[in-house]
Amino acid sequence: MVELHPRLQQDTRALGETPLCWIRYMNDRRFPWLILVPRVAGVTEWHELAVQQQQELLALVNRCAENLKRVAAVDKINIGALGNLVPQLHVHVIGRHDGDPCWPGPVWGNGAPQPWPEGESPDWLQPLRESLSDRCA
Amino acid sequence: MVELHPRLQQDTRALGETPLCWIRYMNDRRFPWLILVPRVAGVTEWHELAVQQQQELLALVNRCAENLKRVAAVDKINIGALGNLVPQLHVHVIGRHDGDPCWPGPVWGNGAPQPWPEGESPDWLQPLRESLSDRCA
Repeated sequence: MVELHPRLQQDTRALGETPLCWIRYMNDRRFPWLILVPRVAGVTEWHELAVQQQQELLALVNRCAENLKRVAAVDKINIGALGNLVPQLHVHVIGRHDGDPCWPGPVWGNGAPQPWPEGESPDWLQPLRESLSDRCA
Repeated sequence: MVELHPRLQQDTRALGETPLCWIRYMNDRRFPWLILVPRVAGVTEWHELAVQQQQELLALVNRCAENLKRVAAVDKINIGALGNLVPQLHVHVIGRHDGDPCWPGPVWGNGAPQPWPEGESPDWLQPLRESLSDRCA
């Protein structure tokens, strides 16, 4: 039984899931920011997944990137797999635009998150969910 | 004819190439830091590549990550596709270790590069080249 790392549990909210991954979004109003987490025990690097899983994760990353860019109307997608603080493999898919709080720098370690109030969520959430509905529960 | 973006030309050195990508390394002694650049005109996002090229780029990213982690003896790989400053699609594969100048933060926009003196290059360069030799000219 694979569990979501407590830090990811704390910082993100559920969006959906695929056979391989949890799809979460960062609880931070500053950016449309997805976190994709394969439900595979003990994996810290993308290359440690089975080759089929590596490609399945990429397909989801790119599917999320393309749809997030459209529904959140951002200028650029930033993709990152860092894991210096949270060893459980997770991939960031972040919508960026000229003028956002960190532009043109990276979002990681740059400023403080602005959590959504209880009961509020981003406008892009439902359109994104619908755009992924054929591969996402 | 696709050309390497002038900023990438200036900040990196050639390591090798595959049918799809230039493989470069950042001219910065602080980190073992690879930059993979598909030779495809006008592409700024990974998902804009043809599906076969998307998977080919991932296979190279993961092949480089696995070998860089071994030959440079680092603790963690950071992978990033940002492109907020340089629109030409390029993927960073960076070897990180506890105690490096930016640990545990990201390397992007964090401190100043320390270029290699003319004629000097990293110890891991030749072993990495050899580890990629079956898919890299």
